[in-house]
Amino acid sequence: MTSTLIHNIGELVTNDPERPGLLGIVEDAALVIEGGTVAWVGPAADAPTADEAYDAGGRAVLPGFVDSHSHLVFAGDRAAEFAARMAGESYAAGGIRTTVAATREATDEQLTSHVARLVQEMTRQGTTTVEIKSGYGLTTKDEARSLAIARQFTDETTFLGAHVVPDGTDPAAYVELVTGAMLEAARPHAKWIDVFCERGAFDVEHARAVLVAGRAAGLEGRLHANQLGPGPGVRLAAELGLRAVDHCTYLDDVDVDDLRDSGTIATLLPGVEFSTRQPYPDARRLLDAGVRVALASDCNPGSCFTSSIPLCIALAVREMGMTPAEAVHAVTRRGADALGRDDIGALVPGGRADLVMLDAPTHVHLAYRPGVPLVTGVWRAGRPT
Amino acid sequence: MTSTLIHNIGELVTNDPERPGLLGIVEDAALVIEGGTVAWVGPAADAPTADEAYDAGGRAVLPGFVDSHSHLVFAGDRAAEFAARMAGESYAAGGIRTTVAATREATDEQLTSHVARLVQEMTRQGTTTVEIKSGYGLTTKDEARSLAIARQFTDETTFLGAHVVPDGTDPAAYVELVTGAMLEAARPHAKWIDVFCERGAFDVEHARAVLVAGRAAGLEGRLHANQLGPGPGVRLAAELGLRAVDHCTYLDDVDVDDLRDSGTIATLLPGVEFSTRQPYPDARRLLDAGVRVALASDCNPGSCFTSSIPLCIALAVREMGMTPAEAVHAVTRRGADALGRDDIGALVPGGRADLVMLDAPTHVHLAYRPGVPLVTGVWRAGRPT
Repeated sequence: MTSTLIHNIGELVTNDPERPGLLGIVEDAALVIEGGTVAWVGPAADAPTADEAYDAGGRAVLPGFVDSHSHLVFAGDRAAEFAARMAGESYAAGGIRTTVAATREATDEQLTSHVARLVQEMTRQGTTTVEIKSGYGLTTKDEARSLAIARQFTDETTFLGAHVVPDGTDPAAYVELVTGAMLEAARPHAKWIDVFCERGAFDVEHARAVLVAGRAAGLEGRLHANQLGPGPGVRLAAELGLRAVDHCTYLDDVDVDDLRDSGTIATLLPGVEFSTRQPYPDARRLLDAGVRVALASDCNPGSCFTSSIPLCIALAVREMGMTPAEAVHAVTRRGADALGRDDIGALVPGGRADLVMLDAPTHVHLAYRPGVPLVTGVWRAGRPT
Repeated sequence: MTSTLIHNIGELVTNDPERPGLLGIVEDAALVIEGGTVAWVGPAADAPTADEAYDAGGRAVLPGFVDSHSHLVFAGDRAAEFAARMAGESYAAGGIRTTVAATREATDEQLTSHVARLVQEMTRQGTTTVEIKSGYGLTTKDEARSLAIARQFTDETTFLGAHVVPDGTDPAAYVELVTGAMLEAARPHAKWIDVFCERGAFDVEHARAVLVAGRAAGLEGRLHANQLGPGPGVRLAAELGLRAVDHCTYLDDVDVDDLRDSGTIATLLPGVEFSTRQPYPDARRLLDAGVRVALASDCNPGSCFTSSIPLCIALAVREMGMTPAEAVHAVTRRGADALGRDDIGALVPGGRADLVMLDAPTHVHLAYRPGVPLVTGVWRAGRPT
């Protein structure tokens, strides 16, 4: 088995809890990869020899970004809706339905090539693991094919039949479909099940029904909740012991306590607030209360069409009171936690060698240099992409 | 002379006032380049033949971005100061002085390679013309060498000896130096002269003295003003008929009227407000009043270390009430206007063939897809960079 030494790393973010600080930083570091896995990490001066060597040129090296929330399986474009919203028109409720219609009309090949393009775009920006949801099919056939397509790109696929109630459908009847035939068809292609629990989408009892049915079918639950206003979603997530609940913009003190006590991760999606001109979630309050916080892109054609984890980091620091270190931790270690993964999100011996090289000396530059494409190298399972 | 046809352009932003709309957009367009200059623009169906052809793949093509405000000649890094500021500590007044000390210590080669790297980074993000200021030397020798280095990269060089009063120097004596020996030394390398007219930097009489002396020496004036609070700078810029006054965050109604009446361009720098967590300037108010508005990066190591014009566009739309079209216009046509240039900033016959290709069908995507590196091709004077 060939071993590769990456040396001359100016700053190595390990996320190793055995090392000091939140990010377990090693300066003037080196890292050895064997068979796609990290074999050794430490100060360059102590590095073992290896078959091959790669000079990182003094750059910062971080764990690859884990984007735990995206909606990449869709067709069509909603740039005009975005421009209208920015001009002060209110968020069109028909938005998701526009994408549903376009997605149903698209061929498998069109959808697949569109997902491939977005995944490649994400990779170039440092994302080495992405979760992908269905949710623009909303028929048994279209949800199943959306997931089958997503599964070609990631193991982290999420069945989101309960994204919105299709036009002309009775909510209770639709939930019966989602928890019945649609769930059966989605199940072979999905790891997770998700519900949009919000006024105008699914109420808390319907959300519970979907999550309970999903769990019985072997799919772990996650939830969209408390995005547009206060609501019972976060409490439901904590009650069911979900691994993550996403958005968390409108929280009361009980919600925060519940998140802390349950250990459910609050996944914040600042690209949405940027692109909809809504107030940002208060990451500082959550962190100070002891809640575990992840950041993700929510890449989708309606409320947030960014695929940029570096932008999420910059927004979290500018708008949400996170330090650069907390924001980096939230897109690496916490992103992995939000997907229940302990093989990614850190650079420690035995972990997968997914890593990002920055054209910058430290992780702070991701927030200090907003918008600048600083990611100059991305390795997945020990190989440059 | 070889001619090149760029065809299959999904959307061509010409900024041609003879064409409809602010951006003079041609859909399904083509463009012919001859000798570094645009020779023909129009619908693809009408395109003439050419010696060579390039397929734009249905992408949007825009004039290259004109970044009319940057401070690229410096050494050192202020990431720690940035992180402290984001953690709630107030903006350290000593900031610029830190960079001055590092810049004076750097060799010509170090400064030159640092500027080269930042210019290259800008080019990758679509900037085809950049203005570069001195201002981290603050001695006759160091200002002159900063400008000589900047001049290797652009014709748009600006003498900013009046950036801050050096420690231990009497302001009046320093202004005498700036308008005397330093101006003489800077003059061969500079097109513009600039002053930071703000409480804590230079007062309005000192600013006037510098601008008047500069004009007498053949340098056109520009001004940093009304960034940190209300002040007389914008009124001075209008009175002197300057081409541009930059920042314009704190304006009263008289300032706005003066800008409109004088035709002085207000150059807004939203990366600064992003990186210092200050309120954004109100672009909408200015545009509605008939003021000409440009956007620029202000790339510098202290208050704003972004080099990303696409981020400036996204911020202007999100935070400052500009439409995507107005923001694109502000970084192209208006950026050129702010530098007194009519050969760039538009794609019209006779203009320089500086252009940007987006991995997107329209210019709206620059705001709709914040943070995503959408610029996939940059041509300068008719050639891919």
